[in-house]
Amino acid sequence: MSLIYFDNAATTKVDEQVVQTMLPFLTEHYGNPSSIHGLGRRTRAAVEKARKVIAGHLNASTAEIFFTSGGTESNNMVLKNCVRDLGVTCLISSKIEHHCVLHTVENLEEAGLKVAYVDVNEQGFFDLEHLKQLLKAHQSENVLVSLIHANNEIGTINDLAAIGEICKEYDALFHADTVQTIAHFPLDLTQINVHFVSASAHKFHGPKGVGFVYISGDTHLKPLIHGGAQERNMRAGTENIAGIVGMAKALEIAYEELEETKAYILELKRYFKSLLQQEIPEVQVNGAQCENCLYTVLNVSFPASIASDMLMFNLDIAGICASAGSACSSGADQGSHVLNAIGVPADRPSIRFSFSKYNTKEEIDIAVAKLKEIIGVPA
Amino acid sequence: MSLIYFDNAATTKVDEQVVQTMLPFLTEHYGNPSSIHGLGRRTRAAVEKARKVIAGHLNASTAEIFFTSGGTESNNMVLKNCVRDLGVTCLISSKIEHHCVLHTVENLEEAGLKVAYVDVNEQGFFDLEHLKQLLKAHQSENVLVSLIHANNEIGTINDLAAIGEICKEYDALFHADTVQTIAHFPLDLTQINVHFVSASAHKFHGPKGVGFVYISGDTHLKPLIHGGAQERNMRAGTENIAGIVGMAKALEIAYEELEETKAYILELKRYFKSLLQQEIPEVQVNGAQCENCLYTVLNVSFPASIASDMLMFNLDIAGICASAGSACSSGADQGSHVLNAIGVPADRPSIRFSFSKYNTKEEIDIAVAKLKEIIGVPA
Repeated sequence: MSLIYFDNAATTKVDEQVVQTMLPFLTEHYGNPSSIHGLGRRTRAAVEKARKVIAGHLNASTAEIFFTSGGTESNNMVLKNCVRDLGVTCLISSKIEHHCVLHTVENLEEAGLKVAYVDVNEQGFFDLEHLKQLLKAHQSENVLVSLIHANNEIGTINDLAAIGEICKEYDALFHADTVQTIAHFPLDLTQINVHFVSASAHKFHGPKGVGFVYISGDTHLKPLIHGGAQERNMRAGTENIAGIVGMAKALEIAYEELEETKAYILELKRYFKSLLQQEIPEVQVNGAQCENCLYTVLNVSFPASIASDMLMFNLDIAGICASAGSACSSGADQGSHVLNAIGVPADRPSIRFSFSKYNTKEEIDIAVAKLKEIIGVPA
Repeated sequence: MSLIYFDNAATTKVDEQVVQTMLPFLTEHYGNPSSIHGLGRRTRAAVEKARKVIAGHLNASTAEIFFTSGGTESNNMVLKNCVRDLGVTCLISSKIEHHCVLHTVENLEEAGLKVAYVDVNEQGFFDLEHLKQLLKAHQSENVLVSLIHANNEIGTINDLAAIGEICKEYDALFHADTVQTIAHFPLDLTQINVHFVSASAHKFHGPKGVGFVYISGDTHLKPLIHGGAQERNMRAGTENIAGIVGMAKALEIAYEELEETKAYILELKRYFKSLLQQEIPEVQVNGAQCENCLYTVLNVSFPASIASDMLMFNLDIAGICASAGSACSSGADQGSHVLNAIGVPADRPSIRFSFSKYNTKEEIDIAVAKLKEIIGVPA
């Protein structure tokens, strides 16, 4: 049985071209970029070329891109080190952040940091008036605002530029968790007042275990991980060369094919949504319904009569890979904190279907037919 | 010109079998181990199998092995979190640690931690009487001892078991940076009183960007990197599956071939050493001369009349990859802190030649002939 993979917000298949780009760095080009001999210089050059590609696509300077082990490390680095190094005394975030932000915020709060959460409406949009009120109320503090660009569970995209302008007005630092949007949407970092963004290669057909953080040139963080002089003294540890090179290739492909891929996946999402609404009673789409949401994510609630576990279990048996909430919290066996925060009734089973360029309409037909069967919709 | 690679303490060529083991996890097995569907369960199983292999070879419990992005992160995690989570108030380390320990210690010292350094003799052995004195002097504190097992620049191996017993006597925690020894020497963690050890896959023919930390079951650290529930809530972030699987394979091969590889490389080292001493006047071997040192590392000082930069430059031109000190500090352009600490005169250029199973006697012949030429030894 061939699998149908609708869990691309959890992780994506590595693009074959990316694997090919990585391979020489797992075989003949194995030098340590910190070594000054020929073999080291070759991998050093590859790392710097990757940095240039990534910086170029985001309109950032190469000096603003730092390689990490992934989005989680990037987000940890920004939040923790803003407090440690930049004297941040108050953090404004939200209840719909990814756990790598939410749990880091909670950890900082336990250590004494002042924390406030921006209200979120039932579609997953931040209440920007409330953000202003919070910033006004904490004007005597050094504030960092950390808000997710596109929510990983429901796909709602918040307006980075608008949030950035508000942060500027109140002289606050701004970090955006862009793990779900980098390489999925154009991002010109010179046009947005944002100090930090983060990315994870495996969300855009790159390898797992590598990511980066953008730190705007006027912001001076220190390392989260100390040691050697790698990443211009900002992130110690021998570089994951194959991963870095693969990530740059994946990002390059993504931006080159962006319009085409976006149109293709958006059509899949629309088709899936309309087919679901047509074929299954009481289906409800969670999150924002706008065109400008993550085209990759469709979060749906099914009738309350359906057991959530059985739904996931039966989809799995049928070879359909989807997710109840984010993958990172599936081990935790708790309800989705995001769906709770936007007020989706907990008694309705919700599933996140998330798409990539490798999905097809045929797969959607099969999935919807299977869903009907599982739920027991009469033919 | 084919390169001669004598920089295996900086990083090693990935074993072809390791690459083959990794490949399926860069192609068809791309699920997120946190996803509960079939594709996720497959990678989850691979991660847990890798953990079992690694734990098995070190005689540890699988619950004591945590995957990280490498040795640097592992060492950072132990040092920082012992202070944060276990109430460590005093750190005893040495001046010959790898920078990822040394700079982390310095960072903790800046933040107010009490730090003391064990004396090191001219061969790189720790003065264990001095260690006892330091432990006695700090008996009122919660002490963590962090000492490197085998020094990465000079290859001197210190006696983990003996240090462990001393730590036990004074009720101190013990962390050993074992990055250069894991997969190079047998290590039975039930036989040594050590609470934390660290490893980096790329030091034993595994991929870059992945490592692990052993945390003994009776020690309760919390994460350095917060977020999802990965690694039983101890290290958030989607797992680098290909890297983890490759690391386990590399460790397995290393331990299976250990005696053979050790004998082979030791013979290369002996041959190189005797040839150098025979052919080049005033050559001096740095570090311990014992059989029980790192068989992979040979650190040599050349006559003071030779310019260090020119020596490295000319070796590189000749296609011979070696290192002046550790790779991690080569970018820093300072003298070696290890050679300084053991009193090697700074005016003599020193080179670390480090070997692997892929080196040959023929390469050594070529290298020594080339060294004679560069140094200007009459034929």
